[in-house]
Amino acid sequence: MPHTLRPASRTHEPRNPDWEATVRGSFARQGVMALIGAEMVALAPGHCEIRVRFRDDLTQQNGFFHAGVTATIVDSAGGYAGLTLMSPGAEVLTVEFKLNLLAPADGEFLVAEGQVLKSGRNLVITRGEVYAIKNGHATHCATMQQTLMTMHPKKEK
Amino acid sequence: MPHTLRPASRTHEPRNPDWEATVRGSFARQGVMALIGAEMVALAPGHCEIRVRFRDDLTQQNGFFHAGVTATIVDSAGGYAGLTLMSPGAEVLTVEFKLNLLAPADGEFLVAEGQVLKSGRNLVITRGEVYAIKNGHATHCATMQQTLMTMHPKKEK
Amino acid sequence: MPHTLRPASRTHEPRNPDWEATVRGSFARQGVMALIGAEMVALAPGHCEIRVRFRDDLTQQNGFFHAGVTATIVDSAGGYAGLTLMSPGAEVLTVEFKLNLLAPADGEFLVAEGQVLKSGRNLVITRGEVYAIKNGHATHCATMQQTLMTMHPKKEK
Amino acid sequence: MPHTLRPASRTHEPRNPDWEATVRGSFARQGVMALIGAEMVALAPGHCEIRVRFRDDLTQQNGFFHAGVTATIVDSAGGYAGLTLMSPGAEVLTVEFKLNLLAPADGEFLVAEGQVLKSGRNLVITRGEVYAIKNGHATHCATMQQTLMTMHPKKEK
Repeated sequence: MPHTLRPASRTHEPRNPDWEATVRGSFARQGVMALIGAEMVALAPGHCEIRVRFRDDLTQQNGFFHAGVTATIVDSAGGYAGLTLMSPGAEVLTVEFKLNLLAPADGEFLVAEGQVLKSGRNLVITRGEVYAIKNGHATHCATMQQTLMTMHPKKEK
Repeated sequence: MPHTLRPASRTHEPRNPDWEATVRGSFARQGVMALIGAEMVALAPGHCEIRVRFRDDLTQQNGFFHAGVTATIVDSAGGYAGLTLMSPGAEVLTVEFKLNLLAPADGEFLVAEGQVLKSGRNLVITRGEVYAIKNGHATHCATMQQTLMTMHPKKEK
Repeated sequence: MPHTLRPASRTHEPRNPDWEATVRGSFARQGVMALIGAEMVALAPGHCEIRVRFRDDLTQQNGFFHAGVTATIVDSAGGYAGLTLMSPGAEVLTVEFKLNLLAPADGEFLVAEGQVLKSGRNLVITRGEVYAIKNGHATHCATMQQTLMTMHPKKEK
Repeated sequence: MPHTLRPASRTHEPRNPDWEATVRGSFARQGVMALIGAEMVALAPGHCEIRVRFRDDLTQQNGFFHAGVTATIVDSAGGYAGLTLMSPGAEVLTVEFKLNLLAPADGEFLVAEGQVLKSGRNLVITRGEVYAIKNGHATHCATMQQTLMTMHPKKEK
C-alpha cells in the first residue's frame, strides 16, 4: 500500500532520438517566449524548466509577476516535458490545464518546472510547479495539473 | 426544475460606486497588458472583455496565439468581472483557474469575456470564454472556470 | 464579435443511430447509480440529465448532499452527453473534470445536466451544471468543466 | 534554485488540540462514507487517507470503481487533511477540485491520500492521489488539486 504522495521517479525512455533538438526547435519558434525573455534552463526526458527574469512589463497591478506569465511558462514547461517523450514527427497540444496560485509571484526570477506524470500514446498528463526566486530563496507560488494531446504525423495515423 | 444549462442573467448590483474607475485603474497598472497590447473593450457589473491583436511575438510554435496569452487575458477578464462587484477598497486575487483549449487560437484578434457566476463576500466564481476572430468570424477557442478571492481593506476586517 | 458568453445552441448530429440504447445500456451497468438511486431523467444528442433523491446516506457532515454525490452524477451526465455523439461501438472515458461548488447542495433532489461544448473525433469537452431542488426552487450549486476521450472499437483504429 | 518538483515535507502544526477527534467526528457524520464502506485508514496533521473495498455497487459500466467514488474519497481525504490544520470550531468547505483520471480504477481497494500543500487562514490548497490496489500492487489511478475554505465559527469573525 502506498505510504507517500510522491510516487518514485520513473525513468522516462524517449521514443524520439532527436527529442532534445525537437523540443529546443519548437521552443525557439514560440514568439511569446522571446517577448517575455523566457529561457529553457533545464531539459531531460519527461522534465523541462523555463525561467523568466523580472521586468516591469510582466506585472499585475501590485508589481508582482502576472498570473498570465506564470501560466505561460508553466504551460510550456509542461508541454515540452511531454514533447520529450513523444514519437518522431509528433506535435504537442495543450488540452487543458488547471493552475492554483499559492503565493504572490514576487521575485527576481520566476521558474516553472514541468514533469510528466503519465505518458500514454495519445494523452500525456503533467504536473507543474512554479517558484519565485528572491534573494536566493524560492517561494512555491503556483501548482498546475495539465493534459496534453499528441498530434501524430499524418503518415503514422 | 431547470430545463437549461444557461441560468437566466442576473442583474449584478455593484457595492462600489466607483467600480469602473477602480477596475480601469487596476488594468492600467498591469504592465503585461501593455506588453501584449491588450485593451479592455467592454466593462459592466459582473462582466469584462479584453482583446489583443495578433502579433508574431504572441505566438506558439505554429504561429497561433500562445495558450499563455489566452490565459493572460481570460484570467484578467474574469478577475476584473469580479472586481466590478467588490466593496470599495477591496482588491481581487486569483485563487485558481482551469482552462480548456477548444480550437487553435487562429485569428487577427483574440477576445476574452469574463462573467461572474457567483459573487460571495470572500469568494467569487467566474466563467470565461475566449474567441479568435478571423475575417469577422468568431471561433470559440477556450473556456475557463475561475475562483477569485476578495482582499478586503485592512480597516474593514 | 461575440456579445455574449452563451454561444448559440448547436444542433448535434449523432453518428450512432442507436445512441439512445447505447447510453441507456451503459448507464444501467453503472452499479453506483443504483446504489445512490440515480435516474437518467433527460437524454438528447449532446445532452443528459441525471437526478438523485435526497437520502441520509448521501450526505456530508452537515446533512447536505456530499460533493462526491454531486461529482458522481455530474461526471456521468457529462460523460453520457458525450457518448450520445460518439461512433457506434465507441466507449467514453473521463480524462478529467473540474468542479466548483457554488452553494450547499440542500434539497429534496439534486439534478445534474451535462452538455457537450465541443465534440472532436478523439476528445469531447463538456460542461455540467448541478441544481439542488428544494420546495420547487432550483439553486445552482455546482458547475463543472470536463474532458472526455472516445475509446474507438479495435477494428476501427 | 529548486531542483525538484517535490518540495520538502513541511511539518504542519495543528491549531486545534482536538484536531483528531474533530476530524473523526466529522467523518463519522458523512452518511455517504458508510454507504460506500469507506474507512479512514490514516490521519496526521496535513494528511489523511481514505480507503474503500471493491463492491459491485461502486462500479462504472466496465466493472471498475466509478470516477464518482474516486472523487468522493479523494475530496474527503483532501478536505480532512485540511481540517486537521484549522482552528477549533472551524468547519471545512470544498471550494473546488480538479481530478485527472490516469488509469482504470481496477482493484480490490481504492485508497485516496490527501495532503495539504498550503494552509492559509481562509484558504487551504491540497493535493490528492488515488491508488487502486490489486494483488498487493498499487496503480496510481487519479490525481487531484483542491481548494478548501475555512468556515470560521461565528464568534471568531
